[in-house]
Amino acid sequence: MISFESDYIAGAHPQILKRISETNLECLPGYGTDKYSTCAKEKIKAACGCENAEITFLVGGTQTNAVIISSMLKDYEGVIAAKTGHVSVHEAGAIEYTGHKVLEIEQKDGKIAADILENYIADFYADVDQEHMVFPGMVYLSHPTEYGTLYTKKELEEIAAVCRRYEIPLFLDGARLGYGLMSRNTDVTLKDVARICDVFYIGGTKVGALCGEAVVFPKENQPKHFITSVKKRGALLAKGWLLGVQFDTLFTEDLYFKISRHAINMAEKMKEIFARKGYSFYLESPTNQQFVILDHEQIEHLGRQVSFSFWEKLDETHMVVRFATSWSTTEEDLKLLEKALE
Amino acid sequence: MISFESDYIAGAHPQILKRISETNLECLPGYGTDKYSTCAKEKIKAACGCENAEITFLVGGTQTNAVIISSMLKDYEGVIAAKTGHVSVHEAGAIEYTGHKVLEIEQKDGKIAADILENYIADFYADVDQEHMVFPGMVYLSHPTEYGTLYTKKELEEIAAVCRRYEIPLFLDGARLGYGLMSRNTDVTLKDVARICDVFYIGGTKVGALCGEAVVFPKENQPKHFITSVKKRGALLAKGWLLGVQFDTLFTEDLYFKISRHAINMAEKMKEIFARKGYSFYLESPTNQQFVILDHEQIEHLGRQVSFSFWEKLDETHMVVRFATSWSTTEEDLKLLEKALE
Amino acid sequence: MISFESDYIAGAHPQILKRISETNLECLPGYGTDKYSTCAKEKIKAACGCENAEITFLVGGTQTNAVIISSMLKDYEGVIAAKTGHVSVHEAGAIEYTGHKVLEIEQKDGKIAADILENYIADFYADVDQEHMVFPGMVYLSHPTEYGTLYTKKELEEIAAVCRRYEIPLFLDGARLGYGLMSRNTDVTLKDVARICDVFYIGGTKVGALCGEAVVFPKENQPKHFITSVKKRGALLAKGWLLGVQFDTLFTEDLYFKISRHAINMAEKMKEIFARKGYSFYLESPTNQQFVILDHEQIEHLGRQVSFSFWEKLDETHMVVRFATSWSTTEEDLKLLEKALE
Amino acid sequence: MISFESDYIAGAHPQILKRISETNLECLPGYGTDKYSTCAKEKIKAACGCENAEITFLVGGTQTNAVIISSMLKDYEGVIAAKTGHVSVHEAGAIEYTGHKVLEIEQKDGKIAADILENYIADFYADVDQEHMVFPGMVYLSHPTEYGTLYTKKELEEIAAVCRRYEIPLFLDGARLGYGLMSRNTDVTLKDVARICDVFYIGGTKVGALCGEAVVFPKENQPKHFITSVKKRGALLAKGWLLGVQFDTLFTEDLYFKISRHAINMAEKMKEIFARKGYSFYLESPTNQQFVILDHEQIEHLGRQVSFSFWEKLDETHMVVRFATSWSTTEEDLKLLEKALE
Repeated sequence: MISFESDYIAGAHPQILKRISETNLECLPGYGTDKYSTCAKEKIKAACGCENAEITFLVGGTQTNAVIISSMLKDYEGVIAAKTGHVSVHEAGAIEYTGHKVLEIEQKDGKIAADILENYIADFYADVDQEHMVFPGMVYLSHPTEYGTLYTKKELEEIAAVCRRYEIPLFLDGARLGYGLMSRNTDVTLKDVARICDVFYIGGTKVGALCGEAVVFPKENQPKHFITSVKKRGALLAKGWLLGVQFDTLFTEDLYFKISRHAINMAEKMKEIFARKGYSFYLESPTNQQFVILDHEQIEHLGRQVSFSFWEKLDETHMVVRFATSWSTTEEDLKLLEKALE
Repeated sequence: MISFESDYIAGAHPQILKRISETNLECLPGYGTDKYSTCAKEKIKAACGCENAEITFLVGGTQTNAVIISSMLKDYEGVIAAKTGHVSVHEAGAIEYTGHKVLEIEQKDGKIAADILENYIADFYADVDQEHMVFPGMVYLSHPTEYGTLYTKKELEEIAAVCRRYEIPLFLDGARLGYGLMSRNTDVTLKDVARICDVFYIGGTKVGALCGEAVVFPKENQPKHFITSVKKRGALLAKGWLLGVQFDTLFTEDLYFKISRHAINMAEKMKEIFARKGYSFYLESPTNQQFVILDHEQIEHLGRQVSFSFWEKLDETHMVVRFATSWSTTEEDLKLLEKALE
Repeated sequence: MISFESDYIAGAHPQILKRISETNLECLPGYGTDKYSTCAKEKIKAACGCENAEITFLVGGTQTNAVIISSMLKDYEGVIAAKTGHVSVHEAGAIEYTGHKVLEIEQKDGKIAADILENYIADFYADVDQEHMVFPGMVYLSHPTEYGTLYTKKELEEIAAVCRRYEIPLFLDGARLGYGLMSRNTDVTLKDVARICDVFYIGGTKVGALCGEAVVFPKENQPKHFITSVKKRGALLAKGWLLGVQFDTLFTEDLYFKISRHAINMAEKMKEIFARKGYSFYLESPTNQQFVILDHEQIEHLGRQVSFSFWEKLDETHMVVRFATSWSTTEEDLKLLEKALE
Repeated sequence: MISFESDYIAGAHPQILKRISETNLECLPGYGTDKYSTCAKEKIKAACGCENAEITFLVGGTQTNAVIISSMLKDYEGVIAAKTGHVSVHEAGAIEYTGHKVLEIEQKDGKIAADILENYIADFYADVDQEHMVFPGMVYLSHPTEYGTLYTKKELEEIAAVCRRYEIPLFLDGARLGYGLMSRNTDVTLKDVARICDVFYIGGTKVGALCGEAVVFPKENQPKHFITSVKKRGALLAKGWLLGVQFDTLFTEDLYFKISRHAINMAEKMKEIFARKGYSFYLESPTNQQFVILDHEQIEHLGRQVSFSFWEKLDETHMVVRFATSWSTTEEDLKLLEKALE
């Protein structure tokens, strides 16, 4: 059975595994103080065009969202996110577990708009009862979103302008950042992300690593004693080298970008296959996640040969299902998909 | 200036203050173990028709919501509430502070409907990703709602049936319960509330007490060591007698119901005054909170003589404002309001 | 039965109840924005010699400790307290509930010493693993302590000096502050407390009020949006007037100090009675709590006529029990105690 | 420089890395539902002699402690641990972050004794104020302890008997469990651990894995919806296969035990070397951590060639330092150490 179920179905890119093996028996200090972590940070800073950035490697996405949000919010604040945001729906209440509300706002295709955001915050500050309500204290975006869509540079800048007006940080969840940056339909670069956002992370788990997310504070704004806050949340990896060496490899000779581009290429071919076979898309996604409309019969038929993810019910007879490519998708996978669609 | 700003603008009903004064210098054990608290509990059990009910007196509404919800939810659960519910909007994130998400669902005039609730929970259990999401673990209703509206007995029973189907408790926030029970447009009695709900509270703060809410677990379902959970949340009053003696007075000779009925009578007269003067209501409220539509000029003019609460913007030129009566509203207040409206 | 069980066995000082009654039916805005709260704050500022102090009235002691500590600590910090401190033992884990550790240090007669404190913090900063440990972020003292003992002005200043050296706030729990200030064996005034500490509270519950604690930030250091943090913890009283009018009365014509002195006078007479009858004290307490050593037979005999509190086991045959006087203790109570001791 | 700094200085045992490489490109479902995780669980159940055990793989030790403790404790409970326990000192307040107190009790060489435990709990239940205190809700042991020491089977059984008497679970932190089981001075087997404890974990991070801890609930007592609680704490690894395949390898042909025994052999040789050279030990440790007393000069001299960990100050001129062996320690390392000691 071939799988397009997610972008984390396979292990690590072989180049990463090779480097892990090569460095495996070196004696290294723990908790991210090793030389590979240091080296990886330097490479990421260079890629971000941000020499003063502060970088920390964490293990997984929900963990990273919870650590960042809870260590940056003030006591009386919550985080604004799209209703469809990962932190709103699919993290089992991990943000609320830290004592903070996710302030859900309207979205379209997974994206929030600067004017809706501005109105939300302005309404809050116009409310005479504001002291009895959760203060908007951060904006959370995912890029690509949970629907594979992307913000334009202008959209990001407009959202950032709202954040600056109200003096709250802009946080970009980049669990799939590579696939966004390497889309053919984007004008956003990694340097733009580092310039526009106050904190973001470069996802490794979904882009070629065994595990690992690189948290970047580009503006010398990392919370004080951040490592202790990380430890307090059970998120500090003993063998930090494991994360360091993976990101060191990903940011050597543009591997991160190359494998992301590969996934985009595969996604485009997959789109063509679906289109050619007469399938409709739920929305236009320029990245590695494609949302296809299938009826129950198609689901049953296709499901025998291909695995994919159920997204949501469209109507009584149709479902939206997700097919994801990744760095590990092969031409052969696509051929088998095409065949399965016949 | 006369005030219709809220139902907690005045202190305590004189009868309550009299009883506090009479018992003030008695030596009593602390933390709710005094004889007045015991006596008040007996009277409330009788009024609820529920001899086995377990009752605890807490100080205020947000505190009570947080204590009940957080001590009853399981780790992986959140509480379902209307988007307009007090716990969703006006408690500064007190529920999230306890580590649990408020799962907001659609409402109409402040009320949630059994079918929308059923669909929400059914969708949750149909979702293959449910383990990554917050489990629906309790239903929160306010009665009267934040918009002064009331559930019918049938509506409450339908909601309770959904709760039972999914084995989650139904919690009724009765901060203004007296005003709901004494409305002329209700078929719900206190005994119905005790029979239908798994936990609820009888509001004192807004119905004649200096402070105090009586939490009722009608089904021998009070969480174990509840007093310790109350203490842990900083909600255990040293001089518990103060709460006990107030509820003892409120539940002597039906004082709670009589003063609630008075507020309803005052609200009905107030409605007539507004109607007679040609004002429109945002919605039909059968209780002590009335939501009137005013334009900016009216607000400015009226605001010089009468205080009221801003509720929400209706359109560019109109606001919804709230006028609340209470046990302390007088005929004289209404006359002055009528005059101010001229 | 006469009771020396605690200093919160009776309601409010009659003068307070009188003022509550007089102002009971005034229409006042909620949540502490009323004129009585404002007036009380002005009087407390004057008494503290601290015109810029920021003051907030809360309901009870555990609540106050949790609100202050959790809204002042940084994410990576805990609060240092004596092992016998109220926050360490008798608050059901209320501080830990806010996500912060109580760092317990050695004490003597309920007091911590500046040198032990200094060593504790210095050891922390000497530890190479400090990033994996809870940072000392505040010092909690109770004054009087749980054993009725008092810090001298010099001791407080030495402790404050350590706090300043490490840039952490000094918090003084003054649940029984009046009884400390009015002891004959103290050189500490309210102005000293306001000058030396970074935050403290003036206890009302145990010193003549129905309920209420006045939190004082003497150095323009109240956490931003403190009211929202209070609300988030369920600690914001709707009828804030109730607290305001009580403290307004307590700080009119020195009532707070006069009734505290009365309790001290009563305690001294009580000490004489016990001494005269040949009883021993567990320690020398200069305040309203007296710790007497009784054997099991004495406990049984005395317990039939007098109520008191069990403190701790001294040895196989003796217990330490506490007798507390308060503003409400009478000469008659003492006569009955003396008789009961015969 | 050779390192004895900790037992997590090297990556993974080569056999583990080989299996990761072999399975790296297989398409597998996420979150621990893959076949390698299933297979690993079966092998662990067999090794534990416990066919009904429920097993979950987590990433690191602090995370595992926090997940287990916070998902098992009731609201009003805390966890009892030695003052020197990892959860008490070196986890940055991770347990308190979940809202629960660590109840620290006296220890000797890192171990707690059944009679001290019994007295502590008995005293709690004898206290009339128990409702105002944190209930003892679990016992936490580390085995080996932070000082390398081991409980005997009798000691574990006595502690378990106390737990059963008070109906609280016994949790054994096995971050270094292999090194304990393979000590020559133990009568405790893995089956004993599974029989005696209510929950424990088998440490991978310190015993040959890149990362990973296997949580075992041997008595069908895994908290309901445990995966959701894991996710809520940010502890659910997307590529769960990574943990599964490692434990599958560790529990194939007794690899876990063999490499643990190797570390013990290395530790014994290291002890002989130190003894031969005239060094003293802080205590007798039968496992892979050895605590040696060095003076400042020795520390400076040795520190130029060998890395080790500072443990604690012994007196003005001496320190206790830790030398740890592990599965990756070689005979060559020991030779170099011996040379460095000359």
